[in-house]
Order: sequence, then structure tokens, then C-alpha cells
Amino acid sequence: MNFSFELHATDGKARTGVIKTARGDIRTPAFMPVGTAGTVKAMMPGSVRDTGADILLGNTYHLMLRPTAERIDRLGGLHKFMNWERPILTDSGGFQVMSLADLRKLTEKGVTFKSHIDGSKHEITPERSMEIQRLLGSDIVMCFDECPALPADRKTIADSMRLSMRWAARSRDAFGDRPGHALFGIQQGGLEQDFRAESAQSLIDIGFDGYALGGLAVGEGQKAMFDVLDFAPDMLPQDKPRYLMGVGKPDDIVGAVARGVDMMDCVLPSRSGRTGQVFTRRGVVNIKNARHADDPRPLDEDCTCPACQNYSRAYLHHVFRSQEIISSMLLTWHNLHYYQELMAGMRRAIGEGCFESWQRTFHQSKAQGDIEQI
Amino acid sequence: MNFSFELHATDGKARTGVIKTARGDIRTPAFMPVGTAGTVKAMMPGSVRDTGADILLGNTYHLMLRPTAERIDRLGGLHKFMNWERPILTDSGGFQVMSLADLRKLTEKGVTFKSHIDGSKHEITPERSMEIQRLLGSDIVMCFDECPALPADRKTIADSMRLSMRWAARSRDAFGDRPGHALFGIQQGGLEQDFRAESAQSLIDIGFDGYALGGLAVGEGQKAMFDVLDFAPDMLPQDKPRYLMGVGKPDDIVGAVARGVDMMDCVLPSRSGRTGQVFTRRGVVNIKNARHADDPRPLDEDCTCPACQNYSRAYLHHVFRSQEIISSMLLTWHNLHYYQELMAGMRRAIGEGCFESWQRTFHQSKAQGDIEQI
Repeated sequence: MNFSFELHATDGKARTGVIKTARGDIRTPAFMPVGTAGTVKAMMPGSVRDTGADILLGNTYHLMLRPTAERIDRLGGLHKFMNWERPILTDSGGFQVMSLADLRKLTEKGVTFKSHIDGSKHEITPERSMEIQRLLGSDIVMCFDECPALPADRKTIADSMRLSMRWAARSRDAFGDRPGHALFGIQQGGLEQDFRAESAQSLIDIGFDGYALGGLAVGEGQKAMFDVLDFAPDMLPQDKPRYLMGVGKPDDIVGAVARGVDMMDCVLPSRSGRTGQVFTRRGVVNIKNARHADDPRPLDEDCTCPACQNYSRAYLHHVFRSQEIISSMLLTWHNLHYYQELMAGMRRAIGEGCFESWQRTFHQSKAQGDIEQI
Repeated sequence: MNFSFELHATDGKARTGVIKTARGDIRTPAFMPVGTAGTVKAMMPGSVRDTGADILLGNTYHLMLRPTAERIDRLGGLHKFMNWERPILTDSGGFQVMSLADLRKLTEKGVTFKSHIDGSKHEITPERSMEIQRLLGSDIVMCFDECPALPADRKTIADSMRLSMRWAARSRDAFGDRPGHALFGIQQGGLEQDFRAESAQSLIDIGFDGYALGGLAVGEGQKAMFDVLDFAPDMLPQDKPRYLMGVGKPDDIVGAVARGVDMMDCVLPSRSGRTGQVFTRRGVVNIKNARHADDPRPLDEDCTCPACQNYSRAYLHHVFRSQEIISSMLLTWHNLHYYQELMAGMRRAIGEGCFESWQRTFHQSKAQGDIEQI
């Protein structure tokens, strides 16, 4: 079975549909939980699926360093290794080389760097990135790209974007013909409309199964990101999925979907679960706060996740304060459940043509803030 | 419904039966996982039940300090708080005051100490221990006792045992009449047969719903413990459950059951799960060892726990080395599953009158050691 994308409905610029892959369907707009090192932290894969996730993201950079792509390949691939049978998207390693590794050296050929784990020396080129992602068995492979830190001057952004476009062509060549597996190009160009257009055209000329919006959610702020999303998705093909990388907070996600984005990923719901930050329809709750110590109510009385069905805020406060592992387990589950419910709500609203009123309700509910202290 | 104990079969000194409580049956011999601070670490309560556990142990000392017994009472009791509807046994707090708290002061009245968490000052007396355990909603309440560190001279052991017996009488008085809730006495007397006999008679004169063997598994070694277990359980009533506190390794447990013990608890399976020590029929496996890095085989190919059904040793090694939370989740689940399978195997063997041959098989399997390296 080959990779395909069906659009079922649009509402304004928002779209809903399904990406069909050999390992199952991905309902869009889709949120992809991040399973950095072969696990969505503090979650069993079955529980991740229970939240409604159709696809996970794996990090090439982390997996190539430990346990290594070659080892995962010998063990039958990442799906089997981590016990997740459904689709996996892997990033190219580029972004995390830039943010995590030591002593990076960037050339036309690729990047050399030292591992943040043990200082060992590694190289990623577009060709090596394609090889690693093939060894992992990724269903959706990302082109190897470079993402400059913002703010940067126009020349830096243009040079970097054009390097990424040359790497995109090399990635396409190295990926070859792999039925059932998809390769996504990544649009760059910072906040500059002309560079975004040039990048999109370069990618379209090469031809990809899907198109990502890269170089956003890197500290530019929501307004700047939305300004780019007001024009950048329109530059990409209508009939292919559009993936906004590394986004985001719930209102980032809603705003991105409203601007035509189909896929997103972010560590926020899982990372926040471990630090006691909880996402609810009424905004963020910090479970560490003493106001919860005697509160018999659930985080959200309408939420159907195990944390809300079976536990009081007082319990969640207690286990967070006591640094019990179940705190990370329950809060991560809740956050991922919240994110998937958010996506499901948007898919329904877009399908029914009422996404604008859905968005109003979303923002009103969030603006209410948390329930009154008891 | 009241508390009762039915013996179904004996084989040598080993016994199998059922303890009936208002919150469900406890099949004996029973192993009680430890849920120190309102959670069996790294496990959802439903998963603990799935391993076969009929009852959990909660620690009075930890819970009285955080979140406090009064708070748990206000929130509806420990069962509701931690989402475990089945029986809970709570210890008296005595043992952990001795092993964890600072600046302990022991008098006839009780013990004063400083919290190891925040240095706050607390007192536990037999009466306060009964009150705390009532506030928690414990199904099986333990007498407040004192347990001297071994080795100690005979006078120290005798004085301590007699203090514990006076406290047992005060615990009995303070406990009062609570239908559906049981109070267990605790035999002390170190390794001394005459003191164990005196202690047993004191407890029988007071009258309890069950009898624990205290002051063992405190560093005396397996041989010394088994020597005491060769005579001490026989001093306790045949028609009441016998509970060996804080035991132990799998072969400690098997040896204790062979000597007439019905109930045990220990942090070992859960704590070991977090440190990478795995119990299997073929002995202990240290998942941290590099020999597992490329091993596609499960921990135990005949084990039906999720860690063995869904993951390779290579994966478990990887997530342990990467300090991923799922490592603690999977290894704890496996260890608790192994312990409950051990208990189920003993219950079957005692019921069928073949416990001696079951023990031979157990020891032979363990003596084989782990499977050969690939």
C-alpha cells in the first residue's frame, strides 16, 4: 500500500482528511506525540494509542547515538523495538544537532558534531540521514535541513535556506524509491515571505509526498509565527499534507490548523506532564500549587482520561510533591489525552463547517481560567 | 461482612487458604506489593491488580507525614485516594520511625521523632497509630511495636519485646470494635525461642485477628531467619493468618511458606524494578549489563507480563541506560508479576499436595542461572 492523502473537508483555510499509510490511517489535523528515545516518556505505547494518537515522532539524533540506528535495524526496526505498530515519523536529526550537540561544524557536505551523551564524534549528511531513517524503518522520513537561529540577517537566512534546498535534492536522491514510505520536504526562509516562496518552489520542483514548515516555533513568538502561517502554507501544494514542526501550545495548534496546517508535533504535553503543568479546557493548571492539596475534584470533570476519572487534584498534588513516578504517568496521560481531544474536536468542527464557532468556544473556555478554589 | 480466614489445604507446614474481607478475598499464601506513599511506585493500580495482587501495603509513617492521615480521611480514605478498591494493610509506623526518622526518643508512652522530609516533630503512640490507621481506612491494621536492631543482648531483646506486648494490649484497647476491619498482633523476641514463645502467648492472651512475625528480615541472614521460622509460626494460632513482615527475596518467600507463613510484603520487586534488577525463574538478571544490548529475546520467554510479551532485552537495556521512566514501569511490572506467579504456583502446589516437588523445581530452575548469552 502506498502513501496517500485524502482531503475530506475544508472550512476557511482549515482542512480535515486522512493520510493513508501501510501501517494505518492518520486522521488530520493530527498531533504527533514525541517518542524521543524509543518511548513517549512515562507512557506505555498502548496508552498513547488510547489517547487517540495515530502516529508518533521519533528523534533521529537521539536514536542514532543510543542505541544506534544499526542496532535498531538488527532488532527489526523501531516499530518492533518500541512496540508501536502504527506509523512513525522521524525527524532528520538536523534540528537537534543544532540545539543539543557540541562542537558542531557545518559544511556543504553536512554536519559533524560531538554527542551530548559521551562526546563521541559523528557526521550527518543528507545521505546519512536518509540511511538512518531507513534503518529505523520510519514511515514518514524528513529531509535533512539546516535551521538558523532567529533573529538573523536576510543574507544568513537566504544562504541557510538555499543550503537546505540543495540538501533537500540530495535527500530526495538518497531516499530513492521506497513504496509505502514517504519523504517530506521542509520549507525554510525564516519570517521572510520571498524566501518562503522561493523555498516552496524549490521543494515543489523536486517533488515530495508532504511538505513541512520548518524554522518556526524557535522563539519568534506566536504573532510572528502566525504572520508566516498566514501566507506560507498557501505556497505548498493543496493535495499534500502540511506539517508544522515542533508546535506547540494548544492555542498555537488551533491557530495553525486555522491557517491550513495538517500535522504537528511537540514535546510540550509530555514534558509538562513531568513538570506538573496540566492542560485543560480552562487553561493551564499547575498541580504543584498548594491550592490543590485538599481539593477532591478532578483536573477536569468532563475529561475521560484515567487521571481525571480516578484521581482527585489532591492526589495528583500529593504524588507530584512526593516525586512519585505515577505523577508523570498520570499527568502525561492527561495532557496527551487533552491534545488528542483537541485535535478530534477540530476535525469534527471542520467536517461540520463550524470551525469558527468552535474556535470561539475554545478561546472563551480557556479565558475562563481554572475552576474556583474550594 | 466480617474478617475471616479459611484454610483450604496444608502440605507439610505449608498452608493455602483465603482471607475474606469486606473489600474482597485475599488468596494465601499472599504477597503484598508495597504502596508506600499512596502508590506502588511506577505502577497504575489496575496494573498491580493485573499482576494478581489481592492486597496492598501502605506505610503509616510516610502517609502520616505527607499528605497526612487527616487529609486522606477528609478525601474519603486511602482506597479512594489512591484508586485501589481492594484490601489494604497498613503497618504501624513503628519500624520506619526506627529506620528513617531523625532524633527518635522512645518512652513507655511511645516514640517522638523528626520527619525525614521537613524536620517537623511528631509522636506516635499505640493509640495514635490506631487513630492514623483508622483515618487511612486500613482493612488490616498492625499493632504499634518496637523492633530492636540485631544483634542485641538478651536483656535488650526481652525488654523491647515486653514493651511491644504492653503496646499490643494498648493497641487492642484503642482499636476497639470495628466490624470489617482486622487488627494483627506482632510477635517479637529476636532469634530467641523462649522470648518468641512468651511473645506469642502474650498476643494470644490479648486476642487478635491475625499474627505477624516481626523483628525478622532485619539483617540476620536467611539461615537465622529460617531457624526462627522453624519454630515461631507454630507458636501462633493455626486458625489465624500469619504474616511475615518485610520478606523478601523469592527463595526467602518460598522458605517462609514452607514453614507455615501465609502473608508477606516487601519493596524488593518494585525497588529492584527501578534499579534494573529483574527476577526470573532462572534467577536474577541485571538488565544494565552490556550483554543484553543486542539481545532480541524477552527477559523470560514463558512470562506473560507486558515487558516479556512486547519487548526485547535490548529494548529494556536501552531504556534503562537512557533513564527512561518506561524502564521502571516495565521492570516493576515484570517483577510484581513474577512474585504473584510465584505465589500462585505455591498455592496450586500446596492445594495439590506436591509442594515439595514444586520447591525442588523452583530451586533447580533458579540454579540454572540466566539463559546463555547470544
